[in-house]
Amino acid sequence: MGVVALAGGVGAAKLLRGLVRVVPPDELTIIGNVGDDVEIYGLHISPDLDIIMYTLAGIVDEWRGWGVTGDTFNCLETLAKLGFETWFKIGDRDMAVHIARTKMLRDGLRLSQVTSHLCRMLGVKARLIPATDDLLRTKIQSGDRTLDFQDYFVKRRTADNVTGVFFEGADKAEAAPGVLEAIRSADRVIICPSNPVLSIWPILSIQSIRRELEAFKRPIVGVSPIVGGKALKGPADRVMASLGFEASAYGVAKFYHGLLTHFVIDSVDWECKERIEELGVRVTATNTLMKSLEDSVRLAKTVMEAA
Amino acid sequence: MGVVALAGGVGAAKLLRGLVRVVPPDELTIIGNVGDDVEIYGLHISPDLDIIMYTLAGIVDEWRGWGVTGDTFNCLETLAKLGFETWFKIGDRDMAVHIARTKMLRDGLRLSQVTSHLCRMLGVKARLIPATDDLLRTKIQSGDRTLDFQDYFVKRRTADNVTGVFFEGADKAEAAPGVLEAIRSADRVIICPSNPVLSIWPILSIQSIRRELEAFKRPIVGVSPIVGGKALKGPADRVMASLGFEASAYGVAKFYHGLLTHFVIDSVDWECKERIEELGVRVTATNTLMKSLEDSVRLAKTVMEAA
Repeated sequence: MGVVALAGGVGAAKLLRGLVRVVPPDELTIIGNVGDDVEIYGLHISPDLDIIMYTLAGIVDEWRGWGVTGDTFNCLETLAKLGFETWFKIGDRDMAVHIARTKMLRDGLRLSQVTSHLCRMLGVKARLIPATDDLLRTKIQSGDRTLDFQDYFVKRRTADNVTGVFFEGADKAEAAPGVLEAIRSADRVIICPSNPVLSIWPILSIQSIRRELEAFKRPIVGVSPIVGGKALKGPADRVMASLGFEASAYGVAKFYHGLLTHFVIDSVDWECKERIEELGVRVTATNTLMKSLEDSVRLAKTVMEAA
Repeated sequence: MGVVALAGGVGAAKLLRGLVRVVPPDELTIIGNVGDDVEIYGLHISPDLDIIMYTLAGIVDEWRGWGVTGDTFNCLETLAKLGFETWFKIGDRDMAVHIARTKMLRDGLRLSQVTSHLCRMLGVKARLIPATDDLLRTKIQSGDRTLDFQDYFVKRRTADNVTGVFFEGADKAEAAPGVLEAIRSADRVIICPSNPVLSIWPILSIQSIRRELEAFKRPIVGVSPIVGGKALKGPADRVMASLGFEASAYGVAKFYHGLLTHFVIDSVDWECKERIEELGVRVTATNTLMKSLEDSVRLAKTVMEAA
């Protein structure tokens, strides 16, 4: 019983804000990516967990696509005056979450416990679990350079050609408490429209999670983050292409081959449908753009009806 | 050559903002109290260093008497929503200083190095040195209870009767680099109008500093923080009284007995003059209230002319 969603950042959050209106929140478990977690100013930042938390709490800055709506940036501005780098934009309210998380982690709580506390205090009813409490960091290879994820993603604005990706710590990382149980008892697993390589792969790189998904007998429904050969946001198309995957809905389905049973693609990608079905995946084509909350609800319904 | 000022918080800061206009800032070394330093949310806060830094940088919130002028409190408000105690008021710009300090300390810098960096970035030209880089914490005894300083001072609003004070770590604390040298080469030492027990005593509790001051052959000029038997701010009068000192300018002079050569008291306390002089201390009576910058400059001049 219940639904499990594998989630990256913004794209996932947009689907999830619809999903919590279609599925009773207490039946929804979100497994969030922590590969892009980063320590800045000694503070532990979990960008993907935060964007989901803020979105479901109704406090996300939708215009920016990150952070807390109406936030001020006085702390960050002062840090700049004090000589610190401020390429990672953190608002004052956002900063409080990082301060709180860091304090609780230093006090010995695990990231999953901290996340659960933060969600409860922010009024998030769905269950959000980081994929792992252990260290797992996405590293980007560009030729002979290795970049930390946020260096690649924010500081250098995804300008580098990605020639490889690996997940530091993945070989030792265990699924956070509740993750495997949630998958085991789920009616369906949803793979949100997140960057397959940079947001979902880190989750799948945890062996126990991948094994649990491979053994899963019920529907695994993906939503393509690539529409008309372009990523809706971020560098997914470029990264897929530079790693040798086709930058298309088909390429995403191929990336998830062996896991997906159903795939929701955008109507503009109807010409991919047949090739995806040849992978043994059932395809639903619909409008996957989520500009409004209504769009999110509509797409969430389609995802829930896809199997 | 040069002037050394022993300084607590607000009262000291008010004199110092005048002093930097009377003494060339590069000839002024301020030795700041760290007994009331506190860790909140895992961040290292040095309230006395901060109030001096903010005052000399021209960014202090004069109306509040602490923090940065025009600051917002969005981070703190969010921490409250996340279930954290927020009795210690920290604005968003103020928070940046604590984040920066903590990060630099964790990176292995000493508090004196961090303070020097922060002052430079904020444009503070006088030299501000924490009395010690070692742990030194003022503890308040009230009957059979022992309170951390900020618990007594901020959280419990100085409501407890102080029956004892001690300075954790004082026996092992060494003067921070530059402190003893500054005293040794100074023309005069000023003891700012800070709480003698809670702000100056922690500095004097460091043996090497006390010894250096006891051996000092030039003027040590104090300014009374008690006017007409009342502390201008804070609990100095009550604390003096409950510890058996007279809550008066005379009581303060007595507290500093053996160190002071000169003492600046308020004109309203003229009747104390003779008793203080009997302690072997020369007395100057003047208006010691510092409401405006001009007041501070005037008092600073008096202090510099007192010997």
